[in-house]
Amino acid sequence: MGQIPSKYLEQAADALGTLPGIGKRTALRMALHLLDRDLQEVEQMANAIVSMRKNIGYCKICHNISDTEICSICSHPKRDHSTICIVESIRDVMAIENTNSYSGVYHVLGGIISPIDGIGPNDIAIVSLEERLQKESVSELIFALPATVEGDTTIYYIFKKIKHLGIKTSSIARGIAVGDHLEYADEVSLSRSIMQRLPYNDQMLL
Amino acid sequence: MGQIPSKYLEQAADALGTLPGIGKRTALRMALHLLDRDLQEVEQMANAIVSMRKNIGYCKICHNISDTEICSICSHPKRDHSTICIVESIRDVMAIENTNSYSGVYHVLGGIISPIDGIGPNDIAIVSLEERLQKESVSELIFALPATVEGDTTIYYIFKKIKHLGIKTSSIARGIAVGDHLEYADEVSLSRSIMQRLPYNDQMLL
Repeated sequence: MGQIPSKYLEQAADALGTLPGIGKRTALRMALHLLDRDLQEVEQMANAIVSMRKNIGYCKICHNISDTEICSICSHPKRDHSTICIVESIRDVMAIENTNSYSGVYHVLGGIISPIDGIGPNDIAIVSLEERLQKESVSELIFALPATVEGDTTIYYIFKKIKHLGIKTSSIARGIAVGDHLEYADEVSLSRSIMQRLPYNDQMLL
Repeated sequence: MGQIPSKYLEQAADALGTLPGIGKRTALRMALHLLDRDLQEVEQMANAIVSMRKNIGYCKICHNISDTEICSICSHPKRDHSTICIVESIRDVMAIENTNSYSGVYHVLGGIISPIDGIGPNDIAIVSLEERLQKESVSELIFALPATVEGDTTIYYIFKKIKHLGIKTSSIARGIAVGDHLEYADEVSLSRSIMQRLPYNDQMLL
């Protein structure tokens, strides 16, 4: 990229370059673009980002992003509250909602078990899932986790934990390519894999 | 993109979506990524952007971005101060510097004449160029403006204004595709078009 003629420009470009999918060249173009904008607009953007990070809240029931204590999905009277879809992240909730093929509720784990990354069962929302299953009347649990070793490990761990409750469990059909994350799947494949979910038991992975 | 579950998230994604080349989907991914970062890191990014917009300075001579009154190019003793390359923007200075094939100095117009966009000769740094040519001892002016109608109009306008000074003028070879902007040209083509610059006279465009 050659020399950047100002440390302010360089710092802004460096900061923007930490965003996912943004290389050095694109970050510099973004920074130069921001220089051409009104100060007020630039401040507004900066405030929007910081305000989001500061003020965002999470649903007390499912841990999805929410501006209210209980999110719009959990508080919706027409959703099927006896079916819980277990997902890794809020991105996955959005991806599934976009398919318009699921009318149950969610439980966002906030991660998956990954010993390599130092993420164990206690680092994700498994305890709150167990508490939820004891309090609520749940008839089916759908695992919609990534088709990776970590996803399989997480399903297996949760399945073992809640097996004694006798709740029907299923895993979305692995119609999505192995190794792929849900948020990158196309909506048709993702929709189909929810429709074609299979009963889950501990023989499946072994 | 379906519904975004929080107005904070939506506002941040909307703000990021105003950056060049960032669509709605990418903006949302960026916003969600920022949610996973430490508040301190997010504030640092926001500050870097605002601080850049507030504090950036421009060289008093060539109008390139600079943290000092006179930029590092204009104050460099080994640059050829008798050759001035006229460019549209600071992006173009960076692009030409990256070719390592030019040792003169620059004059950044900060735009080109474009009646459609309401940009006239007085909206860009032409007066300061004239003043500069009267003060400094300049032997050659190189026009390195986009190969567009607006670029040609700007060259023609400046050429008419400064013709009486009898300074040698040239335009970079139009080896770059017609309609293309300099910042998107590859370095080899851009370097070659500086080498193969042609003497400029008012017959060229007619």
